This record gives sequence, C-alpha cells and structure tokens, in this order.
Amino acid sequence: MKNPAVFFSTLFFCLILILAGCSTNPTTATATAGQPSANAAADPLPSWNDGPAKQAILDFVKTTTDKSNPKFVAPEDRIATFDQDGTTWVEHPIYSQVLFMFDRVGAMAPQHPEWKTKMPFKALLTGDKAAIDKFTLKDIEAIGMATSTGTTTEEFQQIVKDWMATAKHPRYDKPFPQMVYQPMLEVMKYLRDNGYKTYIVTGGGQDFVRAYSQQVYGIPPEQVIGSALETQYTYNKEGQGVLMRPPKLLLNNNFSGKPEDIYLFLGRHPKAAFGNSTGDQQMEEYAQASGGASLMMMVLHDDATREYAYGPAQGLPDSKVGTFTQALYDEAKAKGWTVISMKKDWKQIFSWEK
Amino acid sequence: MKNPAVFFSTLFFCLILILAGCSTNPTTATATAGQPSANAAADPLPSWNDGPAKQAILDFVKTTTDKSNPKFVAPEDRIATFDQDGTTWVEHPIYSQVLFMFDRVGAMAPQHPEWKTKMPFKALLTGDKAAIDKFTLKDIEAIGMATSTGTTTEEFQQIVKDWMATAKHPRYDKPFPQMVYQPMLEVMKYLRDNGYKTYIVTGGGQDFVRAYSQQVYGIPPEQVIGSALETQYTYNKEGQGVLMRPPKLLLNNNFSGKPEDIYLFLGRHPKAAFGNSTGDQQMEEYAQASGGASLMMMVLHDDATREYAYGPAQGLPDSKVGTFTQALYDEAKAKGWTVISMKKDWKQIFSWEK
Repeated sequence: MKNPAVFFSTLFFCLILILAGCSTNPTTATATAGQPSANAAADPLPSWNDGPAKQAILDFVKTTTDKSNPKFVAPEDRIATFDQDGTTWVEHPIYSQVLFMFDRVGAMAPQHPEWKTKMPFKALLTGDKAAIDKFTLKDIEAIGMATSTGTTTEEFQQIVKDWMATAKHPRYDKPFPQMVYQPMLEVMKYLRDNGYKTYIVTGGGQDFVRAYSQQVYGIPPEQVIGSALETQYTYNKEGQGVLMRPPKLLLNNNFSGKPEDIYLFLGRHPKAAFGNSTGDQQMEEYAQASGGASLMMMVLHDDATREYAYGPAQGLPDSKVGTFTQALYDEAKAKGWTVISMKKDWKQIFSWEK
Repeated sequence: MKNPAVFFSTLFFCLILILAGCSTNPTTATATAGQPSANAAADPLPSWNDGPAKQAILDFVKTTTDKSNPKFVAPEDRIATFDQDGTTWVEHPIYSQVLFMFDRVGAMAPQHPEWKTKMPFKALLTGDKAAIDKFTLKDIEAIGMATSTGTTTEEFQQIVKDWMATAKHPRYDKPFPQMVYQPMLEVMKYLRDNGYKTYIVTGGGQDFVRAYSQQVYGIPPEQVIGSALETQYTYNKEGQGVLMRPPKLLLNNNFSGKPEDIYLFLGRHPKAAFGNSTGDQQMEEYAQASGGASLMMMVLHDDATREYAYGPAQGLPDSKVGTFTQALYDEAKAKGWTVISMKKDWKQIFSWEK
C-alpha cells in the first residue's frame, strides 16, 4: 500500500485508543524471579532464564557456526532481522514514533497559529478526546505529514535526535533508549559475536529509527530497514545537493512489505527473524523459507507487572499495538517457531532493573 | 520516473544504435606504456600511472584516515560509491545487461513460438535492423518485461549467473567478469583496506549486478544499489514464502535517483564517488556535499586503442552509453573533481593485459 495514510494511521491508531480511554488491561501475574545461572560468567544470554527459548537461540548459533554440521551457514549468509516495536523495545501504551509526532504538533504550534482553530491539530493541542476519537484517515495523514515531512533529511535526523534525548516514556519515566529489552540486546550481541549481521526491520519510520539505532542497538543506519518516504534531490542556497522529504510514501515496511524490503536491501533471506505481531508474520515465514537452519522467534507480551500483557493469542483484548492473534500463535506452533514468554523466559527485561 | 519503459529504453538505446549500424568512432591514439614504479611492492595502486588522479586517491585516503588531520573521517562514515557501467567495467559497445536481455529473447524463443511472428521479438530473432531502428518505447518495454520479470527472485538470480558464466564480450571475446577495470579493483581494495565500505551504485538492474558482485568486485549483494523492480510476496506450492518479480519499477537509480537511493539504503552521504556520465552527476555532487574531505572522480573514455573513446567532453560523438557532456566536464573542473584519463592515468586497464 502506497498510501501514506495507511502508514500514519497505523501509528496513530493507538494514540486514538489511548486518548479515547482504552486501557491496557494489566493482570496480576507475578514476574518470574531471576536466579543467576551457575556459569553466569560464560553465559552469553544472562538475562534469559533457562528454557526452550534460550535453548533455541543457543542451539541455532551452535548449529550454524559448526563447519562439520550439515546446517552450517556460511558467514556471508548470517543475517538476523529484528522487528523493533514490541520486539526489541516497549511499544505500549503507544509507539514512540506516535509520541514523537504528538510532541511535534506541540513543538511546531508556535509556527502554526492556524492550528489553534484548525482540526485535527486543534484537537491534539487542546486534548479534545471526543474529537480525536472521530479522527478520519485524512486527519491522521495530515498530522503525520505536517510533523514529519517538508524538511531536509539532515534536519529531520536532528529533530529526532533532540527528541530522543529528552522525551520520556509515560509509565517508566525514563528516556526511550532505556525502553530497550536487555535480553534482546544480548541476543544481538551474541549473534554478532558469531558472525551474524543484525538488522532492524521495522514498520516504523526508517529515518526515525536510524537516528538512534547505533546508540540504542549498536546497529548502524544502513542496517535499519523501515517504512520510508520518497526523497527528492534538490539544491540548497549554497548550491549543494540536499534531499528533501516530500509527503509521499515509498516503502510500507509491514506484513508482506517486510520480506519484500529485506530482499530489496539485502538480496536474500534472513536466517533468523524476531517479531511479535501479525506485521512480522511474513518476515518469519521468509526466514524459514531460506532453507537449512533458521530461527523464528515471536515475543509474547504476557508480563503485565514488569511490562504489559495484551493480545488475542493469550485471550486478552487486542490493543492494536503489535497484534499477536490466535491464528499467528497457531502458525508459530505448527511451524516450529519459538514463542518467547516475557514472563517466563526473561529474567530481566530492562538493564536498569534492580 | 517510475515508468519501466524509461529504465529499459536507456538500456536498449545502444542496442538500437548498434544494430542500426552506429560505430564507436575509434581514434588512433596510442596507449601510454606502463613502467613499473620504483616502489611497486608497496604501491597500493600499481596499475595507475603517477599523476593527479592517482595522487588524489592517495591524498584522500591519507587525509581521511589520519586522526590528527582536521579532515579525518570516522570509520563509520567511510563510504565509497562506484557507478558500474563505464566506471568499473566496459560499457561499450553496449551495456552487458542489454546483451543479457538480447540473449534472453533467443533463449526464451522456444517457449514463445508466437515471437516468430510478433514484433518486436521477431525483429530481434531475425536481426531485422530496419525494424529495430523503428522500435518504440513500448516495444523496448515489452522486451525488457518479457525477459526480466515474471520469475521468482531466486530463479532470476540463477538465470543471470548462468549467463555470466558463458556470455562473452563481442570485442574482447572474454567473459564479462574479465571486463572489469583493474585500476578500479585496486582502488576498491585500497579503500577497503583503509576502512571504507565500497558500494556499487548502478543505473543497471540491482538484481542483475548482485548476481556477480561478490565474484567480480568482492562486494556483497547488500552493497549493490541499483534500479529495482518491486517484488511481490506470495507462496509457492509447498506453502513457502517466495518473492515474484512483477513488471513494475520501484527505483530508477540514475541521475537524482542515485543520491536518493544512496540515502534510502545508507542514511548518509558517501565520502568518495566514482562515475563517468551525467547519470552520476548528482551522486558526485552529493558526495561533495558531505562536508569535510571528499573525493569525486570521473572516468573519461579516451583510449580507443585499449578500450574505447567517446563523448562530447572530448569532442567525440555521444554514443548514448555513458554520456560525458562538456557541461559535466566543466562542472567537474570548476568543483575540483578529478577526471581520470584512461589513456594517461591507467598503466593497465585489464588484469589479463600482457
């Protein structure tokens, strides 16, 4: 789908739900207490509890890096892809990029006095929940386009960096870089230490994630594949070539868009793929279709105490942020994908946890 | 321009000229005899004659890798981009990809008996130069689409690999991998040895070049950016996810498309850019706009004895393959880009030269 409205509407869907009063249905589940493992010093995944998920990762790396194993993977084919929101960091109660856009409306309002009386901006600036609840796709597109286009690429990068340095998560009251899941950072490092190239493959904006990917994940910008606007080459007043960001979507990196864009960027399948929602389904399938060894993992948000619990796969309401349907859960089980229980498999979720 | 006809028409332009009787206007210039340099053992660019072009490369690497130099470039920003046709390998008398398509019409003809009587295929199969001379854009699009779409991505890769293993250049009678310029292989290696990531940024088909980039350039598929078709995710009869190649252009990687796609893939400017035609102009400008040190180099085809001589920049006819206009030459001189004279700067062009 090449309609920018689709891109922004997904991002804004939860904003609408949140502002309309949707809650995240926390349960009273208790976090699994973490016990240091006997060989912690040598453990590449210390934030993981022993169990099938941790074992699947260890087995995959052992198998694919052992030259004597028939499922050995040549170094040049060692590619691992990670969805971001809900897979490598918190996506609740709302995508970070939606909060960014929301904050941008406020930050840009002084230069847009007309927004005070112009919908949909007026609704956001005044916190008019009833009006926000009635947002149309066109409204949502207008907000996304007004806040995330029309600058040079360099200007946009700086705007995102500035926001990332100051904005805080509404529940944890910490900067977003601290919303990353420590177990996933360990997996990324473990894979890289074994010759894998790690990629973020996100439905979110490619330029948005690239502004902090090195800092947060140790992943350089060229290893971030995301939804992307077209750019337009032109000249600044000094006559230098610059790229503008017009309001036109080039890549919608969700669902089938994920394998399509992985192929566009890399020319081949990933061998390992990490996701958490229907938007990642085709990426997981594409990893499995690579032939030989492959590792497909799906994060289940079942820890309302330390993080959040949501999704039809466990009989909870669908929050529309990272939908893990029952059908997807069934496919995962039928095809031998590994479902990661945040509650059971993760000893520690955040690096700053005591 | 998103019209596939534009993409294929560029590729086919020379085919038409060739088959219509256009020759390449060779001159009687004598190749500069190569003398081994005194310190050949330590010379990273042994196929280059001493001169401003070789010196520009050596100076650039020395400057950007010296931490005490104000123009030092951090390792993560060391990106060098190379156009392919006419820059890293021979583009005359016709682009290799056009020869590929031409051969594909012949190879696919048994499965397309209707082509015997159907234009434009009939003209190609019978060598009807008069008819080929009258090809319309629609004809050209039909040939490109018939020969390079409709397969899975894996099938297409194999078709290109098979062709590359057998097809030969019409003048040199050698496989195309031997049409690569030895001096450019040396520059690529020299840059890589100094922490630069090397990329092919080609107006040609991304999938086409990726099929041999590792073999020919030591460059992995993910470091090839080219004109690209959309792909379409679907399932094969075993239920596995596969990508099809429908006849729809996604990226036209020429002119402004080069900086736009470099940004899409890498999120930043190159520091060094190598080209040879107006299709590379904006890529060179974009490298120069990176700030700090940058290296812009343009290959001038002025050696009709060892290779070819063509283009308005030296008062020769424009062959429509890699147009080096006088205006581009003037821009290069005015902006401090380095023009590489194949005749003067390259001691040896091909690895197999005696």
